[in-house]
Amino acid sequence: MAEVGDDVYREDPTARRLEERVAEITGKEAALFVPSGTMGNQIALLCHTQRGDEVVVGEGAHCAYYESGAGAAWSGVQFEVAGRGGLFTAAELEAVIKAPAYYMPRTRVVALENTHNRAGGVVFPEDEVHAIAQVARAHGLAMHLDGARLWNASVATGRAVAALAAPFDTVSVCFSKGLGAPVGSALCGSAETIAAALRFRKMLGGGMRQIGVLAAAALYALDHHVERLFEDHAAAKVIAAALRDVAGAWVPAPETNLVMVDTPGIPAARFVEAAERRGVRVSAFGPHRTRICTHLDLPREEVLRVAEVLVEALREANAEASAGMGAGTSAGTVG
Amino acid sequence: MAEVGDDVYREDPTARRLEERVAEITGKEAALFVPSGTMGNQIALLCHTQRGDEVVVGEGAHCAYYESGAGAAWSGVQFEVAGRGGLFTAAELEAVIKAPAYYMPRTRVVALENTHNRAGGVVFPEDEVHAIAQVARAHGLAMHLDGARLWNASVATGRAVAALAAPFDTVSVCFSKGLGAPVGSALCGSAETIAAALRFRKMLGGGMRQIGVLAAAALYALDHHVERLFEDHAAAKVIAAALRDVAGAWVPAPETNLVMVDTPGIPAARFVEAAERRGVRVSAFGPHRTRICTHLDLPREEVLRVAEVLVEALREANAEASAGMGAGTSAGTVG
Amino acid sequence: MAEVGDDVYREDPTARRLEERVAEITGKEAALFVPSGTMGNQIALLCHTQRGDEVVVGEGAHCAYYESGAGAAWSGVQFEVAGRGGLFTAAELEAVIKAPAYYMPRTRVVALENTHNRAGGVVFPEDEVHAIAQVARAHGLAMHLDGARLWNASVATGRAVAALAAPFDTVSVCFSKGLGAPVGSALCGSAETIAAALRFRKMLGGGMRQIGVLAAAALYALDHHVERLFEDHAAAKVIAAALRDVAGAWVPAPETNLVMVDTPGIPAARFVEAAERRGVRVSAFGPHRTRICTHLDLPREEVLRVAEVLVEALREANAEASAGMGAGTSAGTVG
Amino acid sequence: MAEVGDDVYREDPTARRLEERVAEITGKEAALFVPSGTMGNQIALLCHTQRGDEVVVGEGAHCAYYESGAGAAWSGVQFEVAGRGGLFTAAELEAVIKAPAYYMPRTRVVALENTHNRAGGVVFPEDEVHAIAQVARAHGLAMHLDGARLWNASVATGRAVAALAAPFDTVSVCFSKGLGAPVGSALCGSAETIAAALRFRKMLGGGMRQIGVLAAAALYALDHHVERLFEDHAAAKVIAAALRDVAGAWVPAPETNLVMVDTPGIPAARFVEAAERRGVRVSAFGPHRTRICTHLDLPREEVLRVAEVLVEALREANAEASAGMGAGTSAGTVG
Repeated sequence: MAEVGDDVYREDPTARRLEERVAEITGKEAALFVPSGTMGNQIALLCHTQRGDEVVVGEGAHCAYYESGAGAAWSGVQFEVAGRGGLFTAAELEAVIKAPAYYMPRTRVVALENTHNRAGGVVFPEDEVHAIAQVARAHGLAMHLDGARLWNASVATGRAVAALAAPFDTVSVCFSKGLGAPVGSALCGSAETIAAALRFRKMLGGGMRQIGVLAAAALYALDHHVERLFEDHAAAKVIAAALRDVAGAWVPAPETNLVMVDTPGIPAARFVEAAERRGVRVSAFGPHRTRICTHLDLPREEVLRVAEVLVEALREANAEASAGMGAGTSAGTVG
Repeated sequence: MAEVGDDVYREDPTARRLEERVAEITGKEAALFVPSGTMGNQIALLCHTQRGDEVVVGEGAHCAYYESGAGAAWSGVQFEVAGRGGLFTAAELEAVIKAPAYYMPRTRVVALENTHNRAGGVVFPEDEVHAIAQVARAHGLAMHLDGARLWNASVATGRAVAALAAPFDTVSVCFSKGLGAPVGSALCGSAETIAAALRFRKMLGGGMRQIGVLAAAALYALDHHVERLFEDHAAAKVIAAALRDVAGAWVPAPETNLVMVDTPGIPAARFVEAAERRGVRVSAFGPHRTRICTHLDLPREEVLRVAEVLVEALREANAEASAGMGAGTSAGTVG
Repeated sequence: MAEVGDDVYREDPTARRLEERVAEITGKEAALFVPSGTMGNQIALLCHTQRGDEVVVGEGAHCAYYESGAGAAWSGVQFEVAGRGGLFTAAELEAVIKAPAYYMPRTRVVALENTHNRAGGVVFPEDEVHAIAQVARAHGLAMHLDGARLWNASVATGRAVAALAAPFDTVSVCFSKGLGAPVGSALCGSAETIAAALRFRKMLGGGMRQIGVLAAAALYALDHHVERLFEDHAAAKVIAAALRDVAGAWVPAPETNLVMVDTPGIPAARFVEAAERRGVRVSAFGPHRTRICTHLDLPREEVLRVAEVLVEALREANAEASAGMGAGTSAGTVG
Repeated sequence: MAEVGDDVYREDPTARRLEERVAEITGKEAALFVPSGTMGNQIALLCHTQRGDEVVVGEGAHCAYYESGAGAAWSGVQFEVAGRGGLFTAAELEAVIKAPAYYMPRTRVVALENTHNRAGGVVFPEDEVHAIAQVARAHGLAMHLDGARLWNASVATGRAVAALAAPFDTVSVCFSKGLGAPVGSALCGSAETIAAALRFRKMLGGGMRQIGVLAAAALYALDHHVERLFEDHAAAKVIAAALRDVAGAWVPAPETNLVMVDTPGIPAARFVEAAERRGVRVSAFGPHRTRICTHLDLPREEVLRVAEVLVEALREANAEASAGMGAGTSAGTVG
């Protein structure tokens, strides 16, 4: 049973313990529990920017793509996309930094996502991150990391979370998603930034009362569910290998727990539906792109069966598509 | 054990059940679980207003006083205070509604708080609410109720929550505070408004994953902790009666669970401190005003003892003040 | 003929000359030409505040009352009213400054209006301004002066504009209104603030091209129309004296060029209409309050006649009101 | 001499006449005079969007690139870029429209620029505009045209301004820039939109007093300076042809009054400086891109001489670059 207190007064001991723990793991001075990754990202933008500033992101970044326009609505910032496909290089960053002139937006923040969801769970190469950080420093830009899947990047590369987080001023991490806690994320940074973040969390309505119940679950997840992520990665590889054999599917080797399946001739909506009918849930990520996510609740011994089911589903979708049957379009899916 | 699901996809069955239950209790078409009362209020403002609109509130309203300026920051609205002291009349509302002219803010919403925290937990008289609603309708204003303590108003008046909520377009209620659940509030209103609220909740970062754990606690609180609020009200009356006898204290009869103690000659900070030393926590609400809040965790059999302790503490503070000892000032306290 | 250039590149020499002149008059380091007093005030708020901050103003302040909610919409600030009636004291300011706590808005700016339009063109007492500035400094608040009518305050008190502007970080002044230039205002302050203001002016769309044509008119007005303001003040006194004799009218002695006429038993709309029919335009400022403004285009030799016409109009309105004839309500009027 | 009045009360007859004239020319119900093209665009965004919405633009669009981040700061919208280079196709629009889902921004507006400044004054092909409008309508998107240079597009294509503006809900046009009036733009659209625009103009500080002086100049420009734009276009062709012969320069044939000079081996800053030394002003538009703009103040008989001067300047810059001399980088320039 978690020991709780009123976090409005910062008196919930379990939340305090979680925040100290996360700060230590990410190598930052302080951390703040927040209800969601979206809130963690939005608070980071609020902390780093002024009205009208510009934030450089990779294509399909969660903060620009899956947060309902909140960056513009609350921080009043606009996004500039560097490179193509999600990851980008230091040179691509440099190319989009605006010259300082009062009649143009002021480039102020670079936000990376590691691993990058829409890019298929790929790890942002550490050398490139350091090169990007150097460009950012030279131009006085803050560095923010959307680290909702940073645990996966750490497990996949064998690098400590703190090492991966080191080049950044702020890092948001998630306890739900891969880690399996029911609710919650944290924003990590300098003590000064996190003090400012506390006010913004309150303003956004993220100040909650006895959050120890959630913090306890997050602490449990940190203790028990990080190292096992390699199992999800292994499962993703198995599934990818199986699907790669299906005609009409293009499946890059997964780096972590996300498998991206491109099917130029098969509507993703049809594949999603065929899988769902077989009890496996996957997500359309575009008209012809499907994302498969492996996680805690997929036991090791089920992986092969699930891979088979997905192969079947994809084959059925392919057959239907060839037969010219119509299929509804499908919205993208959240990160 | 709560049955959970991913609420991002609106698939957490416990959350759904809670939302349906709360909608029914408040007599509205729909409800949305949110992490805090602040978020409930802010989403209501976002749903009812456009940039630059004006919201009429009573003095010391939570949404203007205890939400860190979020109304202006996110909705871009300004507040206009009607009347004095927290409650206000239909005539006082009418007096502050701006004439429609493009060079003035557009009055758009009336927001009431029932019971009103800073006014000392007083119930907003139902007849006046109806008169206010009539003025609001005549001017095309939306009506929002900050009902964080609506349960108390209902128990104190014997009126159903739905009856008290009927004149309002939206109502926010809290499961923590008086009801004792660890975390959570809900915003209730028409199906159309709640659909819009879902987007704003996401934008504010209040979209969480498996919130069933929180929803289950809230459902429990609704089942077991509403009717017992009369005990808190009785305890407040006992404490108020005891403190009223202390020289230098002015203590209005409490209507619900809040006791307001005005001590013109005694710094509130000193009273707060003397009580804290005796293990009872009360809050300064002004330089010479202290709020005492009775709740779930104050057992019936402890009430008299707590009243005695508070009398002692107040007497000590009084004696110190008379002896001219200094005392630090004290910030106001959250609602 | 004015020498012009492209002010987007800050190359309009007449605009530069005007800005230097205004900076000198107000005793500030720098000044920026803006299209309107509203933009001057809004830029000042943007320069001094962060999202969610609080700005203390007198009742009916132009920036809160006559700028369509722009302060909340653009700066994301909320207003807190000190005192009653427009002017306020240092003690009244102190009473509304919020204690520093992350869950409350952060009081950040005090904005005064001198002379105060809705208070009837009254001069803000200089001693009180200094006392207010002391309180502001003690709490780290910025001081802004809406000086649209500061010329009138200067002429009425015989004090230099720079002396009246000295306690303020920023001052906005108008060249239209009393001074008679067709268009334009200026925001004055430190060089650093005005550099920030340049960006905000661009963002608000106030960056114009060859503004020399407007700047030349403003320079002319500064040379020829400031000292003659005493004529407007004298005219106001004559009109006030005449109206004071009408039964049912309450007319305080005007300090500058505004005459406020309170007619508890006569709808202002009726007075406005009766005056308009006689070719004199006055403004309803409330259901029973009318504002008369004397200015450049009212020649000295016409003042007595205009006073007579207004007396006639008010008598007619009074007679109609006594006869119980209906009259439409009337919107307030801009400042 | 212009007849003026107070436009705050919409009583400036010259401004009214200008607005009616512009509405007629653009084929819209109504128009509103605004101090700048930036304000016209920003008001259009405010009229068409809600907080968090997404606006599709071409690369380098003025409203995203040269308005200091105002779209995000005031409207709270984010931009999505369609295609590459400024112009885009209906298919490229369709590819970036977000599926309707509460967790993603809501695509709400398509904004085109015709002619497109950063693309080199190219005309947006009319057929493509119609195809884009069809996609927009199918998705319920508003269409806005940044028509600061729409006069040029009309003269270059021989198509009426109203025909080019027909597919759009709102159009902003400029009287300065090519038309040579000192100050001012207009936003045109339905009567309902322009009524909403009036409030936003006031909020942004664009409500001015006796604007007749500016409106008169704009009316003059409409009468005398539209048809002569073909001279600017001819001059641009002459200059482009001359520069195309310089080694190391790549100069596309200009469609209107802008000449874009790409010099991969020559820093634009050096060319700009060499031209300036010879009394001709051109603008760096990138590290190796220079924009030359022909206009009213370049008399027909001077064109050949200016072309020669620019050839000389470019040759000098080329020689310096070959000699390896350093040159400072240069910021982009406003539109």
